[in-house]
Amino acid sequence: MPETRANTDRNGVSPAFSADEGLPAEFRVYVSLLEEALEKMLPGEDIFAGPVVEAMRYSLLAPGKRIRPVLTMLSAEIAGGKGSSVLEAACAIEMIHTASLILDDLPCMDDSNFRRGRKTLHRHTDEATAVLAADALLMQAFRLIGLAVVKNRIPAAEAGKIIEDAADCIGVPGMIGGQWKDLHLREKKLEELEYVHSHKTGSLFILSATIGARLSRAEKKIVECLANYAKNLGLAFQIKDDILNFQSSYAELGKDVLTDSKKITFVTVFGLESSTALAADLIKTAKASLLPLGPQSSPLEKLADYIYLRKK
Amino acid sequence: MPETRANTDRNGVSPAFSADEGLPAEFRVYVSLLEEALEKMLPGEDIFAGPVVEAMRYSLLAPGKRIRPVLTMLSAEIAGGKGSSVLEAACAIEMIHTASLILDDLPCMDDSNFRRGRKTLHRHTDEATAVLAADALLMQAFRLIGLAVVKNRIPAAEAGKIIEDAADCIGVPGMIGGQWKDLHLREKKLEELEYVHSHKTGSLFILSATIGARLSRAEKKIVECLANYAKNLGLAFQIKDDILNFQSSYAELGKDVLTDSKKITFVTVFGLESSTALAADLIKTAKASLLPLGPQSSPLEKLADYIYLRKK
Repeated sequence: MPETRANTDRNGVSPAFSADEGLPAEFRVYVSLLEEALEKMLPGEDIFAGPVVEAMRYSLLAPGKRIRPVLTMLSAEIAGGKGSSVLEAACAIEMIHTASLILDDLPCMDDSNFRRGRKTLHRHTDEATAVLAADALLMQAFRLIGLAVVKNRIPAAEAGKIIEDAADCIGVPGMIGGQWKDLHLREKKLEELEYVHSHKTGSLFILSATIGARLSRAEKKIVECLANYAKNLGLAFQIKDDILNFQSSYAELGKDVLTDSKKITFVTVFGLESSTALAADLIKTAKASLLPLGPQSSPLEKLADYIYLRKK
Repeated sequence: MPETRANTDRNGVSPAFSADEGLPAEFRVYVSLLEEALEKMLPGEDIFAGPVVEAMRYSLLAPGKRIRPVLTMLSAEIAGGKGSSVLEAACAIEMIHTASLILDDLPCMDDSNFRRGRKTLHRHTDEATAVLAADALLMQAFRLIGLAVVKNRIPAAEAGKIIEDAADCIGVPGMIGGQWKDLHLREKKLEELEYVHSHKTGSLFILSATIGARLSRAEKKIVECLANYAKNLGLAFQIKDDILNFQSSYAELGKDVLTDSKKITFVTVFGLESSTALAADLIKTAKASLLPLGPQSSPLEKLADYIYLRKK
């Protein structure tokens, strides 16, 4: 059962650490493992198309919080596996996330100049290379998921289902649907905002958590708890992003702020206070989803706290 | 063994049919099967992101020769399976091909206005929707390949390998690498031209032929023969494309001709006659690769003849 803590903020979220630059110290071992693997899991240098690999590397290895792949490794461990056994899938998750950032930043989408503290990929290189690098990251992700199901000896029917779910997470039923709607939000409706964020952000959080557990052959019930947790966490993460974008300057976030602040977001629709309360509620629901998993799920509770309290 | 025919053109390719508008009549049953399935295998209508599905449909259902998915179905049958059992994979192949056309046509790539006799997708809708629709087609393709390995009860290790190979076919080691180099061809070198075409076109021909056979659980030796056939066929197809682009007008091809003719191609480098002879040689090599497969491979011989003799 989760511990009860005395110190809570006014929305009832209990900080277990100081929310500084990156993930709390206890997660850094996973981040190190991942960072080391990411470079190795890029495609080999190509004699003629090397600049595409270079572009993939530029965006993938830019400083990031690595929340999603850490979630993959933590979920594997909660399901009785090892974080290091799902490294291919964790790298795939970070590649999918990076691809989505490259595409979102394109001139025809958000037209952003900065991301993760450096020039966006299409500004650093050119638009065609950026589009190709984003798609190459998606393909490398599927290659790695293919490797992961073989390495973890996943039965054929489940292996096929994992591929289907990964494709749906990115496709129209997931991130692509969310991104299209995000570009076409016209009305300040809760239903539409929730659609955008649950598809654009929630989908990948759910895949991140469930793929780690499924590759560790978790029971269906455990996978469902993790999916519920991740769904709420993802939405909370995005609302927190809206809040940070509203409050912060480029110096703090390392990406274009105006781009996001012109948009319809939770903050511009419901205000800062209601958005903060909503994020807190979602964090509480996320943590409650972990109850059936018992004490071994406490790292996921701490991850949820971090997501609520992070300053960038 | 392939039949010997008396009538050959001066490059030694023997026409078994009149090369008219589309695939020869004997292949039309496969085309019909495919066309009917394509629409059904698109994602369901999405309440908020319907225009992305509409954009996918616009490009996918535009009139096309459907050579690649027919190759998938023919290869399945040569390997002892049924064309109809690999329809998901055949649709996936056509989706991958369509996605590559949408991306190639983008303003940041070839900046084309017409394709398959209609406006290119970014002209018909907008650039962001076109990019998202192309990526959504890639994702739907992986979803369908995931379904196909389950439906055909492919063992887990082989299923994972099929996913890896599909990802590599599209990624840097395949189409994406070829497309990047195509955009950056500066020198008239055979090595570089062959790299572009074997990656941009050859990769997907190889995947088209091998996935049909592998889903029908063909022996490795059969898969290798088909891969050799498809590799040569793909390169011949692209050289023939260069020849047609050089010779034809928009009215005949239904796509921008100038766009391609400004580029470095086999025809602009080696001239019409040498390019035609090279294509004929490749067709002969492709057909020779089929010899170990015996008489049941004759439909693939006819497909090779069609590719050499086609007028559009």
